[in-house]
Amino acid sequence: MELVYRYIEEHQDMYVKWLQDLCQIPSVSTQNRGIREASHMVASLLRQLGGITEMIETNGHPVVYGQFLFNGKKTISFYNHYDVQPEDPIEAWHCDPFAAEIRGDVLTARGSADNKGALMARICAIHAYQQVYGELPVNIKFIVEGEEEKGSINLPDFIGRHPDKVQADLCIWENGIIYADKSIELKMGTKGILYIELAVQGANSDMHSLNAAVVTNPAWRLVWALATLKDDKERIQIDGFYDRVVPLSDEERRILETMDYPEGDTLQRYGLDQFLLSLTGMPLKEKLIFQPTCNICGIYSGYSGEGSKTVLPSEARAKLDFRLVPDQDPEEIVRLLRDHLDRHGFEDIEIKARKGTRAAKTDPGHPLVQKVMRAAEKVSGKAPQKVLMNPGSGPMYQLCQQFGIPTVGFGVGNADSRKHAPNENIYVSDYIYGIKMVAAVLREFV
Amino acid sequence: MELVYRYIEEHQDMYVKWLQDLCQIPSVSTQNRGIREASHMVASLLRQLGGITEMIETNGHPVVYGQFLFNGKKTISFYNHYDVQPEDPIEAWHCDPFAAEIRGDVLTARGSADNKGALMARICAIHAYQQVYGELPVNIKFIVEGEEEKGSINLPDFIGRHPDKVQADLCIWENGIIYADKSIELKMGTKGILYIELAVQGANSDMHSLNAAVVTNPAWRLVWALATLKDDKERIQIDGFYDRVVPLSDEERRILETMDYPEGDTLQRYGLDQFLLSLTGMPLKEKLIFQPTCNICGIYSGYSGEGSKTVLPSEARAKLDFRLVPDQDPEEIVRLLRDHLDRHGFEDIEIKARKGTRAAKTDPGHPLVQKVMRAAEKVSGKAPQKVLMNPGSGPMYQLCQQFGIPTVGFGVGNADSRKHAPNENIYVSDYIYGIKMVAAVLREFV
Repeated sequence: MELVYRYIEEHQDMYVKWLQDLCQIPSVSTQNRGIREASHMVASLLRQLGGITEMIETNGHPVVYGQFLFNGKKTISFYNHYDVQPEDPIEAWHCDPFAAEIRGDVLTARGSADNKGALMARICAIHAYQQVYGELPVNIKFIVEGEEEKGSINLPDFIGRHPDKVQADLCIWENGIIYADKSIELKMGTKGILYIELAVQGANSDMHSLNAAVVTNPAWRLVWALATLKDDKERIQIDGFYDRVVPLSDEERRILETMDYPEGDTLQRYGLDQFLLSLTGMPLKEKLIFQPTCNICGIYSGYSGEGSKTVLPSEARAKLDFRLVPDQDPEEIVRLLRDHLDRHGFEDIEIKARKGTRAAKTDPGHPLVQKVMRAAEKVSGKAPQKVLMNPGSGPMYQLCQQFGIPTVGFGVGNADSRKHAPNENIYVSDYIYGIKMVAAVLREFV
Repeated sequence: MELVYRYIEEHQDMYVKWLQDLCQIPSVSTQNRGIREASHMVASLLRQLGGITEMIETNGHPVVYGQFLFNGKKTISFYNHYDVQPEDPIEAWHCDPFAAEIRGDVLTARGSADNKGALMARICAIHAYQQVYGELPVNIKFIVEGEEEKGSINLPDFIGRHPDKVQADLCIWENGIIYADKSIELKMGTKGILYIELAVQGANSDMHSLNAAVVTNPAWRLVWALATLKDDKERIQIDGFYDRVVPLSDEERRILETMDYPEGDTLQRYGLDQFLLSLTGMPLKEKLIFQPTCNICGIYSGYSGEGSKTVLPSEARAKLDFRLVPDQDPEEIVRLLRDHLDRHGFEDIEIKARKGTRAAKTDPGHPLVQKVMRAAEKVSGKAPQKVLMNPGSGPMYQLCQQFGIPTVGFGVGNADSRKHAPNENIYVSDYIYGIKMVAAVLREFV
């Protein structure tokens, strides 16, 4: 591997320049900016490496698909996305979010951590590996979508129409951080998600609040309904909600014990005295990684301005997300929620549900996953940081788990990379390190 | 009385012109517009009638005080205000809100019903009475404030500094409507009010909702706390909340039975199928007039825009008003609420309370109130519409009840006068009728 590592180091200026070029394209999917430029740049790089590359249209933004096939070997698929979050609030950035400026070891750019850095590290690793060894030891498929930051809304349709392109022996997911001690985070699953809106309608216009004595207030209806969903011990009260939740195995519990969670740093960064229910240690990690949530993302009704207004609101709304764990089914959760509301007398509350995503979880003992773990240990000289499930969400179930494809995620960001926030950044040294990690994984397949 | 009635009719063009002049001054107190002009016009009219008139400064807008004193007789005080609500949304008006245009029998203007029409009817009645009979049969005090639409925030201070000016045997309040059959509404009390804001603080910034598994969500805290305040039978759960509520007397119940409440019209106007708890008839009227309320005026936390955002909000707020009945004390209610929240484990919820107002209620059997009832019956030929308490609120307790002054309110608006709303209006014929009603009340004191 020393030959490849040296090649990567000798060409690091070029690899950094490739990443800067991609970060300078403002490919904000929700605003339909830079989509064509970013997708074409990715496709063009894959073609230069010898990949057979297609731009596959969807009802939204195209998927860039690239393959490097050598019959008779194993196949790895790389899942990434070329789109990024919007850069606002722009005034909070200390430099242009699409200039990809480097100061010292820090590259600041929207998308640098999520996930153009990880995507380019994979492309660069293939380049370096081919330059040093000629042939790749494994088949590679790139699936690079352009709507991850919009909830991957057209990816299921792509998967349905191209099952052959999705097939692989192992999928390398987009994310995971590099720790300060250079140990590498490996994510072997992700929670699912269900996003809903609850709406209650009252009178056809706001009324003077003197009428509150005799006219239904939709804000009260919504408050009462929400209060039935979860108790103050954080136990979700929807009948059957936990029925499909798979208990932790002993192996999972053992791995969870080894996982570092920066309790003190998190509390300090967000100005908190303690975690929910005073949790700490293993129970905290277990809840974060393995427990589903029911979260109010937003609630609004009536007057929210300065001072007082005596009004009886005409409607009330709430937005909620549920983070799901294996084997919960988002469509079933919507039905259980409807039953729950009806049974509690809230037939008047409307549920608007978005299409949800199931959770995905990979067996850490799978032989190909073990290869990735060995690569991480070789590169860093340390045991990898194993995260059994990402507490966020992504389309890992649709793309991998439903086909039985094991999945491991790793990337080039760090604990303070500020994904989705102003001043998103990575360390240039982590990017170079991440290229080596990908090359080390490829080498395990020789 | 026929002489006075005829005089009023013969001079009705002049009286209408006076009202139009006052309505053309945009005296919007919350925007500090037209205050000087409106207060000076009122003072000037009172002086022209022979009243000793003072412009009494407060920390806000001045109170216009006028008195017509004749030793040895009873004293009536007229409570009114020269300020009005803002006219927005301006685009919903079918004419200039401060043009005071008359089309057919309808005068449209901001403030025409609330309450410049009632104020001018009183001034015009004194003018007509003096022109016909010379001397008034009763002492008169005018207390015309300029901040009623801002919650009469400086009136308590005025009352404290000028107890002599407030003293009276009977106070005639600002409002009350004239029914389609020309029967006259008499309001003998008003609910009190307490306006509070509840606030819960979480992390120092919004967080990615994946953290909902382990970080307190202030929106949930607020929802759970609110849900403890009132049950779905509309019973307020704060310990001691109802302790001071005075039960209905047989006399009050008898009067309540005679009160008309336009159930069908109200349901239709606001697009409602039914009233709260399917109430109708006496239980509906009793709840509207005699029961206190706990109403959510506004609630807001997190993301309220289009589509989805997976966020854990950093704060949550709600605005509530309580309409109070005799003998509830708003300051005590704040203490009871604090105790309630603490007892239910919501020490983290902050209460911001505005200074409240107690309810006021007058004995309908009081001899001077009976005089007003007789006058209403003489003018209309019909029994008056007795409303024992206005379900809205006003400073009637501070100005009258705390000194034991009985109070009756009547005015010149109608059921569709659209107070506080676009196209506020009165019938010109109701205004002339209202002048006669005031003259008839004065005559009862001969």
